[in-house]
Amino acid sequence: MHVHVNAAESVDGKLSTREREQVAISGPEDFDRMDALRAEADGVVVGVGTELADDPSLTVTDAERREQREAEGRPPNPARVVADSRARTPTDAEILGDEAVTYVLVSERAVKGDIEALENAGATVIVAGEDRVDLPGAFEQLEAHGLDSLMVEGGGELVFSLFDAGLVDRLTVYVGSTVIGGREAPTLVDGEGFTDPDSFPELSLTGVERMDDGVVLSYDV
Amino acid sequence: MHVHVNAAESVDGKLSTREREQVAISGPEDFDRMDALRAEADGVVVGVGTELADDPSLTVTDAERREQREAEGRPPNPARVVADSRARTPTDAEILGDEAVTYVLVSERAVKGDIEALENAGATVIVAGEDRVDLPGAFEQLEAHGLDSLMVEGGGELVFSLFDAGLVDRLTVYVGSTVIGGREAPTLVDGEGFTDPDSFPELSLTGVERMDDGVVLSYDV
Repeated sequence: MHVHVNAAESVDGKLSTREREQVAISGPEDFDRMDALRAEADGVVVGVGTELADDPSLTVTDAERREQREAEGRPPNPARVVADSRARTPTDAEILGDEAVTYVLVSERAVKGDIEALENAGATVIVAGEDRVDLPGAFEQLEAHGLDSLMVEGGGELVFSLFDAGLVDRLTVYVGSTVIGGREAPTLVDGEGFTDPDSFPELSLTGVERMDDGVVLSYDV
Repeated sequence: MHVHVNAAESVDGKLSTREREQVAISGPEDFDRMDALRAEADGVVVGVGTELADDPSLTVTDAERREQREAEGRPPNPARVVADSRARTPTDAEILGDEAVTYVLVSERAVKGDIEALENAGATVIVAGEDRVDLPGAFEQLEAHGLDSLMVEGGGELVFSLFDAGLVDRLTVYVGSTVIGGREAPTLVDGEGFTDPDSFPELSLTGVERMDDGVVLSYDV
């Protein structure tokens, strides 16, 4: 399983404002880059915080890219995946639309009625972990469903859990030329955070590319 | 007055861990770049949070740079400035050493005894603002003391206040190839944060340079 984290942040590492309002950090060129990454992936992953705040559809925008996928014998859009321990995704979420299949990763704490409601809305629910989603276990189950490459679009809680579990292979970040600030604003990597410098994930900078008014930094993990 | 903010952050915008432990984010090349920036400035500024957490001396490390300053008729080290509304800087702080003059910016809430103790320890105390330091007013007083260029080294609370007051002219950030994570870890720009996208400071990316294992991004504000 190859896991690629991609996001757009301000110079100070924020994904949005402290009110979690969606903010256009990048421009059309970076949006197109993200669309190409989605089109390459078997699945696109977000955390439930991002799902609830932004209600994204996570589909491929460019029609040619969808046709190209179909020509390769793949579905036009990658699968959508939400890491959602308590099954809080509402049944009318965009992510449950019929443009693509949707997996909801929950833990054993999720209420049975919520799981059934998501299944009735068309989702495949994967249960892994007691209190919170066990990501390595859930990703193994996704692999069994044929998903070999995942593109993770945030948010910071999910991205921290992935780094903490050693599951990230690649990180690309568009750094927009703006400052959002705020000690409570969500950042690229939130969660508990690493405290021991020896435990910090080691990244290797593989690319620096100017794009729109900002810059894209690429790392191997 | 020209104000330049310079800092080193992880890819996710963190200046240190959630325990505020000092972490080596950059390498020798970036340290040398920072030393050169200090040597150019009339004053080096930190917020009291950084002062208390790191107890920095804020002096120029390279002897040739100090000699060069003296050859130009300047003191060997730039002045040190702490933004410290309540005068919490301890009298045995490194920043009060005799390698350079030190200004402590306080508000009217600072206790008289603490101000006198700082003055006895050699600091020049500047009072501006009722509850918190009025930065534009305090910087005007620094200018009256002959400080025309300031290099600000953080932390995120001070940097937000400076952006919020429209006082920043230039921003340079070393982005180290590591992830620290943590929703409570200090970031480059903390404070309340901006919530209205129209109020986000607009930056113009003027330089992208690989350095050590990371990259230095330069912006005009």
